[in-house]
Amino acid sequence: MKPFMDSDFMLENETAKELFKYARDMPIFDWHCHLSPKEIWENKNYDNITQVWLGGDHYKWRALRSLGFPEEKITGNASDREKFDVWAAAMPYLIGNPLYHWTHLELQRYFGIQEPLDTTTADAVWDKTKDLLAKPEFSPRGLIEQSNVVAVCTTDDPADSLEYHQKIRDEGKMKTKIIPAMRPDKALRIAAPGYPDYLKKLGTAADINISSFADLTKALQKRIDFFAQMGCVACDHAFEKAPFCSASASEVETIFQKGRTGKPLTDKEIMAYETALMLFLSAEYQKHNWVMEIHIGAIRDNNRAMFDRLGPDTGYDSVGDDCNAKALARLLNAMDANRTLPKTILFNLNPKDNYVFGTLMGCFQSAEAASKVQLGAAWWFLDHEFGMTEQLKTFAVTGVLSKFVGMVTDSRSFLSYPRHEYFRRILCNLLGTWVEQGKYPKNDAYLKEIVQGISYDNAAKFFSLKV
Amino acid sequence: MKPFMDSDFMLENETAKELFKYARDMPIFDWHCHLSPKEIWENKNYDNITQVWLGGDHYKWRALRSLGFPEEKITGNASDREKFDVWAAAMPYLIGNPLYHWTHLELQRYFGIQEPLDTTTADAVWDKTKDLLAKPEFSPRGLIEQSNVVAVCTTDDPADSLEYHQKIRDEGKMKTKIIPAMRPDKALRIAAPGYPDYLKKLGTAADINISSFADLTKALQKRIDFFAQMGCVACDHAFEKAPFCSASASEVETIFQKGRTGKPLTDKEIMAYETALMLFLSAEYQKHNWVMEIHIGAIRDNNRAMFDRLGPDTGYDSVGDDCNAKALARLLNAMDANRTLPKTILFNLNPKDNYVFGTLMGCFQSAEAASKVQLGAAWWFLDHEFGMTEQLKTFAVTGVLSKFVGMVTDSRSFLSYPRHEYFRRILCNLLGTWVEQGKYPKNDAYLKEIVQGISYDNAAKFFSLKV
Amino acid sequence: MKPFMDSDFMLENETAKELFKYARDMPIFDWHCHLSPKEIWENKNYDNITQVWLGGDHYKWRALRSLGFPEEKITGNASDREKFDVWAAAMPYLIGNPLYHWTHLELQRYFGIQEPLDTTTADAVWDKTKDLLAKPEFSPRGLIEQSNVVAVCTTDDPADSLEYHQKIRDEGKMKTKIIPAMRPDKALRIAAPGYPDYLKKLGTAADINISSFADLTKALQKRIDFFAQMGCVACDHAFEKAPFCSASASEVETIFQKGRTGKPLTDKEIMAYETALMLFLSAEYQKHNWVMEIHIGAIRDNNRAMFDRLGPDTGYDSVGDDCNAKALARLLNAMDANRTLPKTILFNLNPKDNYVFGTLMGCFQSAEAASKVQLGAAWWFLDHEFGMTEQLKTFAVTGVLSKFVGMVTDSRSFLSYPRHEYFRRILCNLLGTWVEQGKYPKNDAYLKEIVQGISYDNAAKFFSLKV
Repeated sequence: MKPFMDSDFMLENETAKELFKYARDMPIFDWHCHLSPKEIWENKNYDNITQVWLGGDHYKWRALRSLGFPEEKITGNASDREKFDVWAAAMPYLIGNPLYHWTHLELQRYFGIQEPLDTTTADAVWDKTKDLLAKPEFSPRGLIEQSNVVAVCTTDDPADSLEYHQKIRDEGKMKTKIIPAMRPDKALRIAAPGYPDYLKKLGTAADINISSFADLTKALQKRIDFFAQMGCVACDHAFEKAPFCSASASEVETIFQKGRTGKPLTDKEIMAYETALMLFLSAEYQKHNWVMEIHIGAIRDNNRAMFDRLGPDTGYDSVGDDCNAKALARLLNAMDANRTLPKTILFNLNPKDNYVFGTLMGCFQSAEAASKVQLGAAWWFLDHEFGMTEQLKTFAVTGVLSKFVGMVTDSRSFLSYPRHEYFRRILCNLLGTWVEQGKYPKNDAYLKEIVQGISYDNAAKFFSLKV
Repeated sequence: MKPFMDSDFMLENETAKELFKYARDMPIFDWHCHLSPKEIWENKNYDNITQVWLGGDHYKWRALRSLGFPEEKITGNASDREKFDVWAAAMPYLIGNPLYHWTHLELQRYFGIQEPLDTTTADAVWDKTKDLLAKPEFSPRGLIEQSNVVAVCTTDDPADSLEYHQKIRDEGKMKTKIIPAMRPDKALRIAAPGYPDYLKKLGTAADINISSFADLTKALQKRIDFFAQMGCVACDHAFEKAPFCSASASEVETIFQKGRTGKPLTDKEIMAYETALMLFLSAEYQKHNWVMEIHIGAIRDNNRAMFDRLGPDTGYDSVGDDCNAKALARLLNAMDANRTLPKTILFNLNPKDNYVFGTLMGCFQSAEAASKVQLGAAWWFLDHEFGMTEQLKTFAVTGVLSKFVGMVTDSRSFLSYPRHEYFRRILCNLLGTWVEQGKYPKNDAYLKEIVQGISYDNAAKFFSLKV
Repeated sequence: MKPFMDSDFMLENETAKELFKYARDMPIFDWHCHLSPKEIWENKNYDNITQVWLGGDHYKWRALRSLGFPEEKITGNASDREKFDVWAAAMPYLIGNPLYHWTHLELQRYFGIQEPLDTTTADAVWDKTKDLLAKPEFSPRGLIEQSNVVAVCTTDDPADSLEYHQKIRDEGKMKTKIIPAMRPDKALRIAAPGYPDYLKKLGTAADINISSFADLTKALQKRIDFFAQMGCVACDHAFEKAPFCSASASEVETIFQKGRTGKPLTDKEIMAYETALMLFLSAEYQKHNWVMEIHIGAIRDNNRAMFDRLGPDTGYDSVGDDCNAKALARLLNAMDANRTLPKTILFNLNPKDNYVFGTLMGCFQSAEAASKVQLGAAWWFLDHEFGMTEQLKTFAVTGVLSKFVGMVTDSRSFLSYPRHEYFRRILCNLLGTWVEQGKYPKNDAYLKEIVQGISYDNAAKFFSLKV
């Protein structure tokens, strides 16, 4: 029996262990996360582990609710210590859930705690983490920098002023590069209740009165130029379902006017708008050499009562099962036909779509970049050993895994960097197993290049990261 | 090489073997099966193994048809011995099919036969099973009781008189509790040819003349009350596709009148009716603290010619591939918003839906029960090593596996209880492997609680079983 | 660590190695491929390995594009040696891709080259393969015959004259039987731009002026009779999505007339036409005792720009994600109800459909043939270790794997026969593992029959191959 989560965790053979030596010390490029630039700027230490772990982590909230703990002790008015105790009590029951490994990796790597967390160790863990969290190297910036992170791309709305990015930049003290990444979801959600207001907000940010689709594109163009000046190299889009619907410029204008004035829209109109705007945006992204990320397949806010109580991103989303293949193929083709397809990373949330997304990436490659279109890392509900392994295998059989840009934290937490280590262990174990089974030669030079590429180098190159 | 199906069958490491010791002797709560209360009451011994094995088991019929045996020897007029000989001859070709393991587990556990069944052992197996089947402990009741079954929930129509349940209860001799479970499928199938007649039958059972939707709900309410008096703790619904469509009370009434008079209905109308009735029923279930099971994804009776000859449930069903996520999310949300969502178990038949169902369960948890909404056990076409392992992993990564209510036999056969053992072996092997790989600490107290929970304790608690 | 791709490649235990001894020397029946009868007839040797490997293999082209090589060096004007060098340079990066194994199996088996291909071995591989390719046993016929191929079914349009088949037959020199297989896709594609012209071409071939649907069926009937005389035993159909839509004869005639005159057709009309023609064709196939192959789930030509430049089958296809279950069930049922369902092999391209197709095969079995309806081998994007293993397991749990007709090359290359060896190794490893784990007894007689059946015997019997 292997000891619990020791130095060879997830590494089941000698080659895997050797490969992990290549991966272990590679820096991290955190090109997709939800860290708050404000929190990075302010750099306030946390009072206790509850604030880091349970303050905003809807993954953990879901697990606690599944165990039947009352909301009071999850997002309610219970004290931080009570909330921590609930988490400690929950821990042993999370066998097989990635939270079990993430939690213990974080305890081991940041706090030097090797004992499993449960009710018997809760006191010791609370105290030790409390002491350490008071130290400078446990502030937001401290945690980022001790995690060997070269650069962080936050997630920012086009209307965002990027003031904290500016401050961090002006101050010039961080070794880690903190740059924005644009997420124009609100500009795409023409049927959302907040859309008309959002147009005003965006218009203000861009200093343009947005009263036509052309105005909207002008405003977005200005914001893209601004984000680019601020170092942005990536953007991101979330769709429940891949959109594609052709429409003439005048049809798009009509749809836009309906949306701007809060009139009801058909599904087809929504899709026509999304298509038109994505075609515009992709051209801008390509012009700026940005990487376009597309996340498809989450159904959000399934529980109306809890949405009304807690708002979005509180643990009430699920995987969807729409058909995406044809629309996504057409969307990518339309960009490609216009010669405006940027470097693209396609993330699917339902593993039923693995082969669809994997084979679609193969239809739009070019000499512009190695694997110009990529299958994104296993994400959200798939961000665990099984999801990652399936994603890696799918990428390998449908494309060229060696050129994969690898892992993202996709996290709101400053403690989430061990997920990169977790990913690298799983990657090295998979490749190491293939070598051990005689399926790939033990050629160290190539294996090192491949492992270090997927760990860091490919992403740095793909995103043209300047550090 | 491990010996064929020995005491360590399916247990690939030491921890797995240790865990199975915790699971092995746990009782069985058979909360979803298709055993006949009449057969339990009558308690007639079988003449031979063909009657138990091949009398009504469409899984075996399908396998025999796939091997090209004539229907005569499967469901036709061939003698019981001829039918058995066909089954014995088929057996070695069923490599990889769960029937291979089920058959040999049954031979081992009930009949003490260790030799694989094939043409060379057919005579001996026939004779030995024939002798044993004549004994009292091989009657229906004998088989249930020697299988350490605490309680059995049969599957009963709301219009059913439950007379055999009453007789068993009145007699008071069985150690195993035999209780009904309600399956109101016929009340939901508004577009089925038999619907108008069914309303009459249900009306007679409830002593209500059903001429409006309100009458229907009153009749069902009375039957639910009656089932509850008879000890019922569970109900079950089968849908080809998850239904959701909002409709006003008057729209539902109009749809109902069409159905009652055999008029054609659109798909949307059918779904509106199903939605309305499910919203009513769920409230009743919740009031009675019943567990609601929902089985989604079978397409029934694909072969018209064989349906005309043999009727339903004869081996001509398949897995469907409809999109279910949004409708199911809305249905559960509507119940939750009404505060009438009962404890719920969601069963999907197409593994493409694993993550959809797994993540949806996480959106409707509450402090009412540990994992109030659950992903059901791998079922029917998925009821085998691979399907079970995938279901367990999906449950673990999307929820809290420790609180899983576990296995169901879902069977028409009194010999099917070793499927619980099979499930427990697979469960213990999975958890044991995780421990051996250092992915979970070898903490015996928690592991024992988890294994025994999934084997029996969780279900007993979830269904509020009183024994 | 196992040596790289040695004699025990893919065989992970002793039983697997023993089973492979049964499989290894079985002949090959290549019942589905895309070899050119003209090339077989002409039997011209290749100048170099680029011509065999990279002349028409869109799998390799996709991999090279994914690595960012310019089209010039893939399908463009670069020299054969330049193209080979690009392939050699790409090779080490294809870790985990089946091309890596196929390439090395071909180098090992045909050319006796054991060293992995990369830039350091490129010269030696180029020279050695060049020398050997000049020899008579490396001509198309030489390669087929040294691969122990009993019979090859090419892929031929109904309008094809089969002149090269006739010439090969008349000459009477080949030990391997070369027979046509009919692929009437063009007759089914009523909405394709070339349909009206195709009708003329088919009419000429059949000596019938096709001006009605009845004429079309007469023409196809004549061609089927002709193909049957030429030894044909199989046909093949490709659908993006399973078609089913009932229509009257006069409706079909109206649709046909629209198609014949190039008028636009609705999706429903297209499906009604496809359904009607498939019902006709299946009856003809069944009359001739042909096997009907149906391939479902590819979306073709996703990249318009590259389609315009290179045409179809150049590496721009993907996996689709349509819902197929109900339509496919109805199509098979309609054939079955007419008693015209031929022996059928269903191939799905999206693994999400594994259980749909697997369980549908079980609904239409009969005493006409063992597993009269089959789940086809893992195909195209699934033709690798993981896809094959999943297909084998799905077949096993939903049907009777022992009667599987096994592997197809589906290839345009005369070097592709080691894929049968690859498949057999994976098959033997799976079955061997089950035996080693005590899940099936080590009964050599049955295991041999099963392994040799799936390797060759089942297909020979299923297709009524006369050799």
